[in-house]
Amino acid sequence: MFYTDYKLQFPVRVESPNPLFAKALQQAIGGVEGEIRVAMQYMFQAWGVRGDNKYREMLLNTGAEELGHIEMLATAVALNLENAPLGLQEDVSGDPVGGAILNGMNLKHILSSGLAAMPVDASGVPFDMSHIYASGNIAGDMYANVTAEATGRTLAVRLYNMTDDPGMKEMLSFLIARDTMHQNQWLAVIEELGGVSQQVPVPNSFPQDQENQEYSYVYLGFAQDGAEPPRGRWTEGTSIDGKGTFSLRPMEPQGREPDLGTARPGSGAQEKQIEG
Amino acid sequence: MFYTDYKLQFPVRVESPNPLFAKALQQAIGGVEGEIRVAMQYMFQAWGVRGDNKYREMLLNTGAEELGHIEMLATAVALNLENAPLGLQEDVSGDPVGGAILNGMNLKHILSSGLAAMPVDASGVPFDMSHIYASGNIAGDMYANVTAEATGRTLAVRLYNMTDDPGMKEMLSFLIARDTMHQNQWLAVIEELGGVSQQVPVPNSFPQDQENQEYSYVYLGFAQDGAEPPRGRWTEGTSIDGKGTFSLRPMEPQGREPDLGTARPGSGAQEKQIEG
Amino acid sequence: MFYTDYKLQFPVRVESPNPLFAKALQQAIGGVEGEIRVAMQYMFQAWGVRGDNKYREMLLNTGAEELGHIEMLATAVALNLENAPLGLQEDVSGDPVGGAILNGMNLKHILSSGLAAMPVDASGVPFDMSHIYASGNIAGDMYANVTAEATGRTLAVRLYNMTDDPGMKEMLSFLIARDTMHQNQWLAVIEELGGVSQQVPVPNSFPQDQENQEYSYVYLGFAQDGAEPPRGRWTEGTSIDGKGTFSLRPMEPQGREPDLGTARPGSGAQEKQIEG
Amino acid sequence: MFYTDYKLQFPVRVESPNPLFAKALQQAIGGVEGEIRVAMQYMFQAWGVRGDNKYREMLLNTGAEELGHIEMLATAVALNLENAPLGLQEDVSGDPVGGAILNGMNLKHILSSGLAAMPVDASGVPFDMSHIYASGNIAGDMYANVTAEATGRTLAVRLYNMTDDPGMKEMLSFLIARDTMHQNQWLAVIEELGGVSQQVPVPNSFPQDQENQEYSYVYLGFAQDGAEPPRGRWTEGTSIDGKGTFSLRPMEPQGREPDLGTARPGSGAQEKQIEG
Amino acid sequence: MFYTDYKLQFPVRVESPNPLFAKALQQAIGGVEGEIRVAMQYMFQAWGVRGDNKYREMLLNTGAEELGHIEMLATAVALNLENAPLGLQEDVSGDPVGGAILNGMNLKHILSSGLAAMPVDASGVPFDMSHIYASGNIAGDMYANVTAEATGRTLAVRLYNMTDDPGMKEMLSFLIARDTMHQNQWLAVIEELGGVSQQVPVPNSFPQDQENQEYSYVYLGFAQDGAEPPRGRWTEGTSIDGKGTFSLRPMEPQGREPDLGTARPGSGAQEKQIEG
Amino acid sequence: MFYTDYKLQFPVRVESPNPLFAKALQQAIGGVEGEIRVAMQYMFQAWGVRGDNKYREMLLNTGAEELGHIEMLATAVALNLENAPLGLQEDVSGDPVGGAILNGMNLKHILSSGLAAMPVDASGVPFDMSHIYASGNIAGDMYANVTAEATGRTLAVRLYNMTDDPGMKEMLSFLIARDTMHQNQWLAVIEELGGVSQQVPVPNSFPQDQENQEYSYVYLGFAQDGAEPPRGRWTEGTSIDGKGTFSLRPMEPQGREPDLGTARPGSGAQEKQIEG
Repeated sequence: MFYTDYKLQFPVRVESPNPLFAKALQQAIGGVEGEIRVAMQYMFQAWGVRGDNKYREMLLNTGAEELGHIEMLATAVALNLENAPLGLQEDVSGDPVGGAILNGMNLKHILSSGLAAMPVDASGVPFDMSHIYASGNIAGDMYANVTAEATGRTLAVRLYNMTDDPGMKEMLSFLIARDTMHQNQWLAVIEELGGVSQQVPVPNSFPQDQENQEYSYVYLGFAQDGAEPPRGRWTEGTSIDGKGTFSLRPMEPQGREPDLGTARPGSGAQEKQIEG
Repeated sequence: MFYTDYKLQFPVRVESPNPLFAKALQQAIGGVEGEIRVAMQYMFQAWGVRGDNKYREMLLNTGAEELGHIEMLATAVALNLENAPLGLQEDVSGDPVGGAILNGMNLKHILSSGLAAMPVDASGVPFDMSHIYASGNIAGDMYANVTAEATGRTLAVRLYNMTDDPGMKEMLSFLIARDTMHQNQWLAVIEELGGVSQQVPVPNSFPQDQENQEYSYVYLGFAQDGAEPPRGRWTEGTSIDGKGTFSLRPMEPQGREPDLGTARPGSGAQEKQIEG
Repeated sequence: MFYTDYKLQFPVRVESPNPLFAKALQQAIGGVEGEIRVAMQYMFQAWGVRGDNKYREMLLNTGAEELGHIEMLATAVALNLENAPLGLQEDVSGDPVGGAILNGMNLKHILSSGLAAMPVDASGVPFDMSHIYASGNIAGDMYANVTAEATGRTLAVRLYNMTDDPGMKEMLSFLIARDTMHQNQWLAVIEELGGVSQQVPVPNSFPQDQENQEYSYVYLGFAQDGAEPPRGRWTEGTSIDGKGTFSLRPMEPQGREPDLGTARPGSGAQEKQIEG
Repeated sequence: MFYTDYKLQFPVRVESPNPLFAKALQQAIGGVEGEIRVAMQYMFQAWGVRGDNKYREMLLNTGAEELGHIEMLATAVALNLENAPLGLQEDVSGDPVGGAILNGMNLKHILSSGLAAMPVDASGVPFDMSHIYASGNIAGDMYANVTAEATGRTLAVRLYNMTDDPGMKEMLSFLIARDTMHQNQWLAVIEELGGVSQQVPVPNSFPQDQENQEYSYVYLGFAQDGAEPPRGRWTEGTSIDGKGTFSLRPMEPQGREPDLGTARPGSGAQEKQIEG
Repeated sequence: MFYTDYKLQFPVRVESPNPLFAKALQQAIGGVEGEIRVAMQYMFQAWGVRGDNKYREMLLNTGAEELGHIEMLATAVALNLENAPLGLQEDVSGDPVGGAILNGMNLKHILSSGLAAMPVDASGVPFDMSHIYASGNIAGDMYANVTAEATGRTLAVRLYNMTDDPGMKEMLSFLIARDTMHQNQWLAVIEELGGVSQQVPVPNSFPQDQENQEYSYVYLGFAQDGAEPPRGRWTEGTSIDGKGTFSLRPMEPQGREPDLGTARPGSGAQEKQIEG
Repeated sequence: MFYTDYKLQFPVRVESPNPLFAKALQQAIGGVEGEIRVAMQYMFQAWGVRGDNKYREMLLNTGAEELGHIEMLATAVALNLENAPLGLQEDVSGDPVGGAILNGMNLKHILSSGLAAMPVDASGVPFDMSHIYASGNIAGDMYANVTAEATGRTLAVRLYNMTDDPGMKEMLSFLIARDTMHQNQWLAVIEELGGVSQQVPVPNSFPQDQENQEYSYVYLGFAQDGAEPPRGRWTEGTSIDGKGTFSLRPMEPQGREPDLGTARPGSGAQEKQIEG
C-alpha cells in the first residue's frame, strides 16, 4: 500500500522557463531511460519476489522513491512551460511561417496537456510498459536495473549539460547522485548474493553440463574472409564467471541450408509453391 | 557489409512438431529477451562506436552471430508447425467449439505467415525497436547487453525445460551456451576498461563533485511509518564503485507541495481553473 | 513524495490457483480499463493541476490507492500461477500436442516473468501510456476518470462472474466497491464545480458566440436516403447543458469536393500527377 | 453500408498556408482526442449494440459524421502544406544548419506523405486503435464518448487559439460547435436511460449487495501522516448516484505483506531464490 | 462526406457460433491484412490525391465499401460469440483448470467488449495506423493496395478453409471475390497510367541519369564465399521496366570501415571513449 | 549464417554536417519505408520459403544487402551529427528560448544515443516489426516487396531533393539505383512465375468457382445518390488477370440491418440492455 505527503522529495525551481527544455525533460519521464520505467520496474520486480522477502521491501522502497522522481520532473516540465506561447500570435519570434519557440516545442504540451507533463519521451512518443523488465530471476533483474540506472544517469548528465538554468542544474545534480547510489545498490545485491562468480551465468540454477560446453566460452568470429576476430579480454584468460577459459575461433556453419519443402494445399500459398 | 552462406550455424531438427511450442519459441525471436533485440542492439551499438574501433568489430561479429540465431529459431518455428491443423476439420481433437490444438496455437501462424515464423513474441505482439539500447556510452551499453543475455539465457532455459523434444533440447543447449559466453563477453569488456571501480558510476566522465554528494551513497527509506529501510550490502561498507560509503536513512521531503497557480486564459482550461 | 508499508490494502487469497484466471486478471492490471491506467492518470492529472490545489491532493490520494490495487492484482496473478505447469511434462492433461492448461495460459507468465504478474493485458499486450488522459481541463479529466472507473468496474464485474474462487470473489467485491466510490467521486467534482450546466460544454471558457451556433445543438442525420435520423432525448427539448434546444435534420454537404491540384516537381510523385 | 458524395461537410479554406499548423492539426486527426478515434469508436460501439437498436443507428449516424471530419481536417492539412519547402534550398530562412520552417515541420509530411495528411498526431506518432473504447455497456460507452468530445473540443479550442487564419478559424468554429452537440448528445442518452441515479454505478446490473459495501461510498485517504484527506463534495452528503452517503477516512491496510515463498526448481530463478 | 443505411452489404449469418473462429476473424478486422487497414488506406490516399481527381473518387468509393466490410466482419464476430461462456462455470468442458473454450478464446471478447468485435487482430493486438500507406505517389500507393488485397485475400482464403460453417463460408466467398476485384482494380490503374514500363521505377519523375546507373540493374550477391548469386529472371534479359538489362555479380565493398573518432567531452560517454 | 567485413558497401561522406538532415535520414532507417523493414522482411520471407529453395537464397542475398544499407545510413546519421550542439550554450543561434538547431533536431540524438543513429523514424517513433510482411504466399510477398521498394525509392528521392551536400547526394544516388533494381527484381519473380495472368488473383491456389463470382470483376459504386462510379480501366475490358471482364454498378445492400438482440445477464451490460 502506498502513501503520499504531497511534497517534493527535493526542491524544483526554474529561473528561466524554456519550453524546449520541457520537451527534453520528457525523456527523463517517459523515455526508455526514464523514471516511469524504473518506478514500475522496481515495483513489478518486488511484487514477484520469490526467495528472501527483504528484496521485496528494498525494491518497494526504491520504487516509491522513483515515483517521487517522476513527480519532480513533471513539476519541472510544467514550470518550464510557463510563458510558453499558445499560438503564433504570442510567439516572440514573430515568424510568419511558424514561430521559433513553437518550432522547437512539443506541440502536445499546448494541445493535449495544457502546459503540463505527459508520459511521453522527448519526441512525444508514449512510454510502453514492455520496457518493465521483471524476469523472476533476481540476478537478471539486477542487471536490468543497473542498465536502467546507467542509461538514466547518462541521460540526466546530458540534460545537466544541456541547460544553464541554476534551478534545473540543482535538481539534476540531485537526480544524478541518486542514480549513482542506485547503480551501486543493484551491484551490491549481486555482491551480497555471492558476486559475479556465483551469479553468472544467469540463471545459475541451470546445470552447465546440460549446455553445449564446446561453445560456452569461445568468442566466435564471423569475418567474411574467415579472419580471426578482434582480440580482447573476452578472448583469453579465465572467463569472468571463473568457470571456463576464453578462447576464440572463426565460426563455421554446423548446419545445412534448411529446406521446408513444399507448401500444403489449402495453406494459402501460390500453386507453384505447392507443386514444388 | 554483410554476407551469408545460407547455412545454419547449428543444426535444427524437430522430432515431434508441436504448434504450441512454435508459439513459445516466438518469444526467443520477437520477445524483448529475444534474438532480434540482441542482433539489432549490437549492430546499432557498433555503428555508433566512438573511441577504440575494435569494439565496433567485436560488436559486429556478435551481431552477425545473433542474426544466425534468429534464423535457427525461425527454422525451428516452421518445423514445429509441420502438421499443424489449418482448421477445425483437421484438428485431431474433434472439439466442436474449437480444437485443442487450435486453442493453443498462435492463429497468426496459420492466418498471417502460412506456418512460418514471425517477428512477434509468444503472445503474438510484434517486436518494437525501442528495445534496442544503444546509448553511446560503452559501459551503459555493456550492462544493457549483460541484461539482454541474462534474460535471454533465462528464457532459453525455460524453453529447454518446457519441451521434451530431443532436437529442440539440442538446439537450445547450444543457444544457452552462447548466452553463457555472451554474458561473460560483455562483462569482460567492463573488466578490460578497468572494471566496475573505474567504470561506475556510469557515465564516469561526469565530475562527481558536481553531483549532490549528500545523496550519492545513501540508501533512502520510504516506509510510511518512518521505519529504517531493509539492511543489506547496500546499506553498509564501501560502495561497489569504491568511491563512497554506504549508509541508510529514512527520507524526508526537502521540497514543498508544488502550486502551479491558475491556468492561463486561452489555454483550454475550465473557467474555475482560470479564476483560481 | 510517496511511501509504502509493504502491506496489502485488502487481503488477497486464492483457494484454487488457476493460470487461466491469472491471464484474465492481467486485463485489470495492464488493460486499458486497468489499474496502471488509473494510478498514472490520476497522478499526471494531479501534477498538472492549475486552479484550486485541493484537487491535486485529492487526485494524489486516489492515485496512491490505485497503486495499491495494482499491487493486490499482481499478488493475485502470482498466486493463481502457483502450480502452473512449466512445460508439457507437467501438464496434467497429458495432451501430446500441447496441454490444456498451457493452451490457455499466457506463455509469457512462464517464459518472461517466472510466474508473476506483468504490465500487460489479457492478451499479453503491454500497456501503452498514451491512455493516460490528463488534458489540463478539469472537467474533461473528470469525465475521463468516470470512463476509466465505469469500464474498470465493468471489467471487475466480469472477472467476478468468471471465477468461482471465494478468495478472488472477495477481492473483486472490494475492488468493485471502490470503483463505485470512484465513479461517484469524479461526478462529485463536477457537481462541486457547478454541475453539468456550468461545466458543459467543455471547455466552458471558450465563448460560445465564437462557435458556429447553427450547429451547436442539432443532431445531424447521415442516412443515405436523406431520411430523418433516429429520435431520442438528443433530438428534442432543452439541451443537457441548458444552453440550447435540441433539434434534428439530415445533413447536406456545405463544402465542395476538394481539388488539391497537381503535385509539385521534386515532391516524389509520378509524372502524370505532376502534369495534371 | 456506407456511401459518399465526395463533398466536404463544411468548407475548408486556408488563406496563409502554414506547415507548422499542419503539424498541429494532425493532433485532431490522429491524436487520442482526434477524429479517427471518435469515428471508429462510435462505429465499433454501434456494431456491438445490444438492447434497443435505435442506438445502433444513432451511433452510426454520428460515426459517419466523424468520418467527414477526418476528411475536412485532412484537407486542411494538405492546404497548409502548400508551398512548404521540400528541402533546405527552398527554405526561406536560408539557415545553413536547417531552415526555420523545416525545423518546425513534421518531416514525414515531406518524406512519407508527399504534403498530405497522415493518421498520426502532432508528434508524428501513429494512432493506435486501442483507444477505441467500446465496452458493450452503454453507460460506460456514453461516458467514454463524453470524454472523447470534451477532450476533442478542448483540442479544437486550442487549435482555434493557435491560428489566426480566418479560414481555419471558420472550420474550427464549426467543429467546436459539433463537439458541443456531441457532448450533449451522449449525456442525453444517459438522461434518456434514467439519468445518473439509475445508470451509476456502471454497470448497474451488478447487485450492489455483492460488493463490499463498507467501501462503496467512502473517500479514503493515503496521507503519509494519517491526516484526513481533502474534503469536498465527495466526502459528504448523498452520493451522486443517490445510493449511499459519502464519508471519509484515512485508509489502514487490511492485508499483510505478501510472501510468495521460494521459486520452483526449473523455473529459471537463481539458486538462492530456490533455496529460500 | 459519408452516409449510411444501417444495412449490411452482404448477409452475415452463423449457424454454429464458435468463439475461436470469432478470434480468428479479428485478423480480418484489425490485422495488418485486414479491413480497417484498407478502408483507412484508401481514404487517406484519396484525401491526398494530386493530379486527376477521378482517382480521389475511385478511392473514396472503394474506401466506403471497405468500411462496410469491417461492419460485416464485426457482425460475424458478435454472432460467433453467441453462447460463449462468460466464465468457468458456463464452460461446457468442465475442465477444472480452465475450460477448453475459454482456453481458445480472446478473453477480451468477454472482459473488454462484452461479446462484440474489437479493432484488434487474432492475437488481440490493436491495429496501429502506421500501416496506412499513403505516399503521395500514385504508383507506390497502387502497389501498396495490391499488397493489401493480396494478403487480404490470402487471409480470407485461410479463414474460409478454417471454418465449416455454411454462413461463414458464404460471407467469406463474397469477400474473396471482392479481393479479386480489388487486386485487379489497382493493377488496372497502373495499366491506365501506362503500365509497368512507364510507371517503374517508382517514382518515375526522378531523372535516372542522377542515379548511380552502374548499380541500377545488377543483382548483387552477398555469398560469404563470393559465389555467384542464384540466377533467375532477375539476372538476365531486359529489366521489367524495359530501361536496362539485368546482370549479376558478387558485391565487393566500395567503402572502408567507418571510424567515428572519439566522443566529445560532455556527450555522456565514458572517459576512455573520450580519450580515444 | 551471416558474416561481415566491417566495411561499407558504398562510401559515405558528409561535407556539411546537418543535424536536421540526420533527423530526416532516420526515416530511411526506421521509417515504414526504411531499410530495417526491407532487411528483416526479406529475411523472414526467406526463412519461411516453401517451394523452390532458390528464392530463399535470392531473398537472403538481398536481405544481407539491405543490412548493409542500414549500416550506411547509420553512418550518415552519425556524420551529420558531428558538431551538433549538446545544449543551449553551444547553439550558434544564441536564441534564449531554444536554439534554432536544437529546435529542429531529434533531441534523442543528444539524450539517448549520444550523437548516433537510432532505429526510429524522422519523428523519433521506433520501428515496429508488424511491418515485416511475410505471408507465406510468394506472390503476395513479392507485391509487398515492390511496395517497400517503391515507397523506399520515393523516400530516397525526397531525401536527395532535400539536401545539397555532395556526399549525401552521392550516397543517395547509389541507394536510389539499388531501389530501381529491387523494384525490378521482385517484379521479375512474378514474371518468372508466369506473370500477372498466372499469379493473380493471389492466392491462385483457391478455386475461383468457390468465390462469389457475381462480384469478382465488378467495380461497385457507393455514391450517396446512386450515381454511377468513376470510370476507368477498372470498369471495362478484360480484367488484368485475364479471367473476367470488368463492369461497374452502384451497390445496393444485400443484407439487412443486424440486430444482436439483448445482452446476456452477467455480461456486464446495463439493465436496460438486458431487458431489451
